Amino acid sequence: MGRVHNFCAGPAALPEVVLARARDELLDWQGQGASVMEVSHRSPAFEAVASSAEASLRRLLGITDDYAVLFQQGGASQQFAAVPLNLATDGDAADYLVTGQWSKKALAEGARFVEANLVADGQDDNYMSIPETECWSVKGGQYFHYCPNETIGGLEFGHVPEPDAPLVADMSSTLLSRPIDVSRFGVIYAGAQKNIGPAGLALVIVRRELLGRARDACPAMLNWEKAAANGSMYNTPPTFAIYLAGLVFEWLEALGGLSAMAAINQRKASRLYDLLDASAFYHNPVARSARSLMNVPFTLADSGLDATFLQEAESAGLMNLKGHRSVGGMRASIYNAVPEGAVEALCQFMDQFERRYG
Amino acid sequence: MGRVHNFCAGPAALPEVVLARARDELLDWQGQGASVMEVSHRSPAFEAVASSAEASLRRLLGITDDYAVLFQQGGASQQFAAVPLNLATDGDAADYLVTGQWSKKALAEGARFVEANLVADGQDDNYMSIPETECWSVKGGQYFHYCPNETIGGLEFGHVPEPDAPLVADMSSTLLSRPIDVSRFGVIYAGAQKNIGPAGLALVIVRRELLGRARDACPAMLNWEKAAANGSMYNTPPTFAIYLAGLVFEWLEALGGLSAMAAINQRKASRLYDLLDASAFYHNPVARSARSLMNVPFTLADSGLDATFLQEAESAGLMNLKGHRSVGGMRASIYNAVPEGAVEALCQFMDQFERRYG
Repeated sequence: MGRVHNFCAGPAALPEVVLARARDELLDWQGQGASVMEVSHRSPAFEAVASSAEASLRRLLGITDDYAVLFQQGGASQQFAAVPLNLATDGDAADYLVTGQWSKKALAEGARFVEANLVADGQDDNYMSIPETECWSVKGGQYFHYCPNETIGGLEFGHVPEPDAPLVADMSSTLLSRPIDVSRFGVIYAGAQKNIGPAGLALVIVRRELLGRARDACPAMLNWEKAAANGSMYNTPPTFAIYLAGLVFEWLEALGGLSAMAAINQRKASRLYDLLDASAFYHNPVARSARSLMNVPFTLADSGLDATFLQEAESAGLMNLKGHRSVGGMRASIYNAVPEGAVEALCQFMDQFERRYG
Repeated sequence: MGRVHNFCAGPAALPEVVLARARDELLDWQGQGASVMEVSHRSPAFEAVASSAEASLRRLLGITDDYAVLFQQGGASQQFAAVPLNLATDGDAADYLVTGQWSKKALAEGARFVEANLVADGQDDNYMSIPETECWSVKGGQYFHYCPNETIGGLEFGHVPEPDAPLVADMSSTLLSRPIDVSRFGVIYAGAQKNIGPAGLALVIVRRELLGRARDACPAMLNWEKAAANGSMYNTPPTFAIYLAGLVFEWLEALGGLSAMAAINQRKASRLYDLLDASAFYHNPVARSARSLMNVPFTLADSGLDATFLQEAESAGLMNLKGHRSVGGMRASIYNAVPEGAVEALCQFMDQFERRYG
């Protein structure tokens, strides 16, 4: 069949041109008579792939040489442990702001390795808004951790916190969706399977002056300094995932970079939120000031129609709209690789569905 | 160009039929209108991929339900830390047998988390033979670690050690090359990029009774019990790598399983070792009783010819024959996916090269 409109929260849609290129050279890459998967990570050809991917990412995000860029494995969840293991020793403190399922998980894992202070917890408002800064209880410590975009709740920060301690951000579902000022962060990390590439790769962008603080008990593979010193090749990296990420970065640059991408993402999100706001049939529960550009959860007024909605959507080629099992309802993840046409098709379907069942 | 003969030590050659299948369905997998990379790891379609890959691996290796099979990330190097973190607490002891670069690295990382006893070190013989069992100094402890096949040295055990403690084996470059008796091992682990699939995936096969011993300071992503309890989906796994590994397992089963594969591998290795032994021009330095089925290092009598050898080999489509930077000389890795025809082509080239330069 043709390609569907894929609103999966992750592993998410990849740009079709990237997949097509990977397909075309899957058995014979760069005329080498082998797949990019089948060559040594230490070969000049692959070293060029890795360094070119890093250079492209640095251009896209404006990352200066004050920061190391690391290709890691284990997803964001592995970084939940790597953050305290690299930045704090036993007994040190750190601040954690909880605004949804992912920052909550980061806290739970982090608290096993550091005295974790709960800055604020949006649970009272069911994670539908960001706790007011005035109500935060910042203790100070080795770092301040938060999640700028909660994939499950569809909640996104409109501002960057300004703690005294280095700011650590799990940007899994927002990185590359829009320009950011990297210099405001100590550490940015992200699982790849949203806007970067396939699952199995994680990016870490860390201010170099924060390297060298890892505790003795940090496993070598979680040690950022070792990764930086070895150009992310302390051992064999996930070569195919890095290659695909590089193609995604190239695609973003060709498109005009993150400002251009952000403009497209803004149009996509506005089209969908406008429809939700204009309707009494659909509802987005998140505070307007904290709506996510990437993950748009919504409910139907009559949840008895959920199954019908999902079934008819699938028949119309609109896939993976079911909300996270912990939240229910629907969720449209409209990452970079989801084209405007897909959002338009979704909105037209939603209009028609409301007319028939509303 | 056509496909070359690829003797890379890893990331290594993959079966051409596996790559061709992956290519054909890269943009539209199972008629879903999306790549297998673009669907949720929790979708029924992908769950079927993961469970079918596990079932196939269990059939190939005869793994009983007494063992958990885990799809992990971070390669064997991450398991170097995971082993002591899962099997021992601070102050516990464990035995390490060192027979080459990889078991040495496992010891170095393990010793950061456990009282590591050096059972024996083959360094005196430059890792060209396996230290005699009579000379081992086994202290006993939570486990006994060794590496049945050293990828760099080309050294392979012909027997399985029988310590009192659970036996832990880094089988990265031997797993699936021949049948093994899993029941003799407590833990088997392996990076995928030799006989299993692409880099970025690691297999752990662990006796279930050894689960539940992880120390408090074990990061969740390194915890085997958590991985087992979550069907290797504690977080998003490397879905594309698991899919490819499943295709490799299918390919092995269609070929007749590991006995059939071992017979082919034996013929490949014999062809190459026979040539080396019959020649005064080429030399394999490893003790005959400890020669690897998978990794065949060799030197030329005149190392001044090394560059010429490699250059002419490449011109003949025989790629990645350069030895590891720590050893020099040549190395032909003849993993499962390297066909007999490739070894035959290599041997014919070596014959001709010797005739011209010997």
